This record gives sequence, C-alpha cells and structure tokens, in this order.
Amino acid sequence: MTQRGRLITLEGGEGVGKSTNMAFVSAWLEARGVEVVRTREPGGTPRAEAVRELLLDPGFDEPLAADAELLLMFAARAQHLAEKIRPALERGAWVVCDRFTDATYAYQGGGRGLDEARIAVLERFVQQGMTPDLTLLLDMPVDAASRRVSQRTDAGGGERDRFEREREDFFSAVRHAYRQRAEAEPERFALIDAARPLAAVQHELAAVLDRRTAPWR
Amino acid sequence: MTQRGRLITLEGGEGVGKSTNMAFVSAWLEARGVEVVRTREPGGTPRAEAVRELLLDPGFDEPLAADAELLLMFAARAQHLAEKIRPALERGAWVVCDRFTDATYAYQGGGRGLDEARIAVLERFVQQGMTPDLTLLLDMPVDAASRRVSQRTDAGGGERDRFEREREDFFSAVRHAYRQRAEAEPERFALIDAARPLAAVQHELAAVLDRRTAPWR
Repeated sequence: MTQRGRLITLEGGEGVGKSTNMAFVSAWLEARGVEVVRTREPGGTPRAEAVRELLLDPGFDEPLAADAELLLMFAARAQHLAEKIRPALERGAWVVCDRFTDATYAYQGGGRGLDEARIAVLERFVQQGMTPDLTLLLDMPVDAASRRVSQRTDAGGGERDRFEREREDFFSAVRHAYRQRAEAEPERFALIDAARPLAAVQHELAAVLDRRTAPWR
Repeated sequence: MTQRGRLITLEGGEGVGKSTNMAFVSAWLEARGVEVVRTREPGGTPRAEAVRELLLDPGFDEPLAADAELLLMFAARAQHLAEKIRPALERGAWVVCDRFTDATYAYQGGGRGLDEARIAVLERFVQQGMTPDLTLLLDMPVDAASRRVSQRTDAGGGERDRFEREREDFFSAVRHAYRQRAEAEPERFALIDAARPLAAVQHELAAVLDRRTAPWR
C-alpha cells in the first residue's frame, strides 16, 4: 500500500519571498525522491482559479461582502481539496501549497477583522479536521516586505491587485495573526526569519525540512 | 420611520412558469403601491451573477465538488443579501426573488443528495435566522414541466445549461423536497398548482397575495 503523502504549506505576507522559496522547498523534496505537487491558494484547479479571479478582480463597481469573500475562499479550497490535494495525497505524493487556511485567518481574520469563530465554522465544514502536516511561515517586518513589493512592482511586475493595494497597518495585522498562529501550534509551524539574505533563509529551510520530514520519508 | 419591506420568493422546478409569474406577482404588488425590487438567485448583483456564471458554466473540464457548489451558492447569496436584498428591505421596498434558500435544499439537498444538516450550517452562517416572509411554490408533475422545457428549448430558447440537462429522476427528487418543505412550513409557504392554465394559476396567485400580504400593506 502506498504511504499517504504529506501536505506542506508556505505562508507569509506579501514580499516575504514565498515564490522563490516554494521552488526551493519543492526541489529539496524532489532531490530526496519525493513526488511533489506544487500548487497555490486560492486556486490550484481550473474552477478554483476562476473563483480566485473573482476574489482578486478589482474591476467590480460593488464591494465584496465580508461573508461572501470568506465563502468564496472556502469554495475554492473545497474544490482544490477535492480535485487536487486529496487525490495527490492518496496516491502518496507530497503537496507543497502556496498559502492555505492559515492565510484566511491571517488576512480575513487578522487583516479584515472577521470573527475567527466564523472562519472556524467554514474550516470545519470544508476540512473536517484535516490540517497541513507542516507549515513554513516566512516572517519579516512589514516595512522591509513592503519595500520588496514596491521594487517588484516598479520593475514592471504587473498591476498591483486588490490585496496588494491594502494599507500597511493591514499587513501588520496580518503578520501579527500569522505569528500568533505559529506560537499556538509549534508542532505544525516552523517560523522562518525571512528578513535575512536568501542563502541564510534557505539554509534554515533545508534544516527544518530535514528535521521535520525525516520521519515521513 | 419606514416600515421594513418584505421578502417574497418564488420557487419551483424547471418549466413551472416562474418567469411569467414573477412578472405577475411584481405587477400585482406594484398596482397596490408597493415599491418592488425584482431579483433572482443565484445572482442578483454583478458579483453574485459572476458566481452564478461559475455555477452554471458547463465548459470546465473538471467536476464541481459538492461542497464547492454549496459554498459558491451561499457566497452568491451572502453578496446578494448584503448588497441588494437587505438594503432594499431596510428602505421599505419589497423584494420579489426568483429562487432562494429553499432551492438549495431542493436542488443540492433533494436533487444531489447533499446532507441537509450541512446546508443548514451555511444557511445559519449567511442568514442568521432571516427567512422569506412568503414563499410561493409553483408545483406541477415533472413530466409536464419537462415537456414545457423541451418546447422552450426546441423553439430556440438557447442552449440548455448544466442544471437543465439533469435527468428526470433528479427533478422528481427536487419536486419532492420542495413539497416536503412546503408541508413543514405552511405559514411561510403557499403551494400553487401550476399545472393548470395560466389564468387559473394567476387567479390563485392573486388570491394568495391578497390574503397573505394584506396585514403588511
């Protein structure tokens, strides 16, 4: 029988280096013979990506109600779990996902101030107790992360979407919520200081991956 | 102070005459001096209509997970309530809505066999106890309704969408679920025999509206 795969999530605010480190984590696992499925939230399947478009589209002349945003986020997640994550885990692949439910608590909960208990209702509804096996939280001060985002945008990285335009105090609240979650669940989370040079960050990521995933490989 | 408006919903399967009778109900109320906001679910606002597109689009090469369908349905509803229905009711307008939460119980619950308790979780989450003031259920045998849908389609009424292609036993289950709900809540529902000629149906609709809405006008 195939050993069940593992779900590893990367979390953190804008500009902390998630994309670069997604690639690093995937390559590190693949070098150890693990089949890796790289994916992201919201999105990850055609239908879930279509929901992502609705969430990020700044073009509507109509505010997105807080409840509707939360339900769309979990609709995309339900689709992603059913069509991509669960099938991959069942065949023994490891899933490396750019953001997952911790991001909902950090952005919609910490950032927008939605009641955590309401987020928890939908988390239970969709995940029924399922959580990531390991969550790598890339953490750095908000002003440093904002500078990175500005550089990326100035360099022609495309128009900033609705979430990227949010104000700095929003991102401070997001960071605070992420750090609180990491403190509350130290066995699942690894808090990575992402303000250091990339080589140092990846040295730590490799050490964390080695230590945490050894029992699963 | 403005008297709070009322929410009247029209329910029923495909081919029972909802569109025609939506117009009749709205005109009947307007003739009595009521401000009427006509709307429909899923949809009713630009963002909610965009969610409707995702729900009805048969073009994805990917099944829509049952949970995702339910969450999208309630995301559209949350948006519709926040941006259209609640503001209308608060200013004293009456909202006449083509389908609402009873349709979710009938289609996703009765038709697709989703657990009613799971639908109820999302109903509580979104509506927090709010229900229509009056629900007009247009009821007729499934074979007669199917013949009407076929005639409409053959006459060039456009391509049939994902829901319209569902099989006849699905529609029998939908009808059964609708009727059960009407029996369980006789004070909210009026069951209208829609198999009769249109004049007879509308005669009964007028009588029901007169009797049920008199205390609110």
